[in-house]
Amino acid sequence: MSIIMHDLAGADPGLRFSPYCWRARFALAHKGLPVETIPWRFTEKDAIAFSGQPRVPVIRDGDRVVSDSWAIAEYLEEICPTPTLFGGPTGRAHALFVNAWADSVLLSGIARFIVRDLLDIVDPKDRDYFRSSRESRFGATLEQVQAGRDDRLAAFRDTLVPIRLVLRKQPWLGGPAPSYADHIVAGTLMWPRCASPYKLLADDDAVSEWFGRMLDQYGGLGRNAKTP
Amino acid sequence: MSIIMHDLAGADPGLRFSPYCWRARFALAHKGLPVETIPWRFTEKDAIAFSGQPRVPVIRDGDRVVSDSWAIAEYLEEICPTPTLFGGPTGRAHALFVNAWADSVLLSGIARFIVRDLLDIVDPKDRDYFRSSRESRFGATLEQVQAGRDDRLAAFRDTLVPIRLVLRKQPWLGGPAPSYADHIVAGTLMWPRCASPYKLLADDDAVSEWFGRMLDQYGGLGRNAKTP
Repeated sequence: MSIIMHDLAGADPGLRFSPYCWRARFALAHKGLPVETIPWRFTEKDAIAFSGQPRVPVIRDGDRVVSDSWAIAEYLEEICPTPTLFGGPTGRAHALFVNAWADSVLLSGIARFIVRDLLDIVDPKDRDYFRSSRESRFGATLEQVQAGRDDRLAAFRDTLVPIRLVLRKQPWLGGPAPSYADHIVAGTLMWPRCASPYKLLADDDAVSEWFGRMLDQYGGLGRNAKTP
Repeated sequence: MSIIMHDLAGADPGLRFSPYCWRARFALAHKGLPVETIPWRFTEKDAIAFSGQPRVPVIRDGDRVVSDSWAIAEYLEEICPTPTLFGGPTGRAHALFVNAWADSVLLSGIARFIVRDLLDIVDPKDRDYFRSSRESRFGATLEQVQAGRDDRLAAFRDTLVPIRLVLRKQPWLGGPAPSYADHIVAGTLMWPRCASPYKLLADDDAVSEWFGRMLDQYGGLGRNAKTP
């Protein structure tokens, strides 16, 4: 039986853009585990109430329910040890730093480039919730947060330096093959890819080249995902 | 026979402040390998010419010579697998991201707070070299680079968020015990500790608490190091 996953969707149910859901999708694909995704919108809290918390991704594997992308990765590593996501406990501990960096520097950096664009793709019933929750978080309107993004692009790209330095020494963040570290960062970059027409990465950036290879992994899972 | 390591020293030969040398010192201590350090100054390129490059740390282990802190860590893991620094190839690959983050964000962030202070502790014969090489790198005088540091302190501390997020979930960057990821970050923080009286970390920061525990590891290796 397939694992079932609640996956954030837009007004178009084929548009899947949650960076956390993408981390889980890549991890599932890495394990070769089939998944059946259920489109979910921000305001459908009732649909995932069974998980005891209000956010996606949530997976249901038989009678096991797991929420939170990190916990899902740990769960998948437990039920299906190979191919490995973490390469053991120390690899998992180190991946947590990549996760923390992506959750803080990368996600909050990207948000300032696409948060107004997101309003155009979320389901109509999510729009008020999306605007008010994000504006409360930023203390500014979505339009103000996103304003002047061209002027801030070079500074954003500078924050990717640690990835570039790693890619000088190895083809993937996981070394010779992708690991969950690659899923974390590529999953995060699926968010702008699937939610906004804005071009965040320069074509000649080593990060773009690596992300292109990630898009082609797992039968083109990322490459074939719908974009706006 | 002990491993011999050329270790950057100040005018006071007991003052050891290189962030890269400290990474190697912690890694050596983690392995329980005795080391004999030789104080080295920036302008003593001839003394390490045998290594084929001009920077410390350089270790000599019998007839093996290894330079570069990362390569030294890999070498130590090879000759002495336990206790592990990386926890396997994927753990090593993930640690490279921590290394890249420390080399870019953390080191260059710290430099702007202590680079003028360094001039007061380097050996007199190193002063002209230190000033001219660093001013050329920054495109500004040491005094200009360090100016206004109090006003920039909060922004610097914000860059430590990824470490704080990790420490919410585990006691060390390496998980339940320190790994080379801890050595990388703690080694980098030994630089300001041993080179400047400036207080970079707030006492109530989880990073301070963790760094305090790192200082006490390995018989207080970090704690007992001379400070200015």
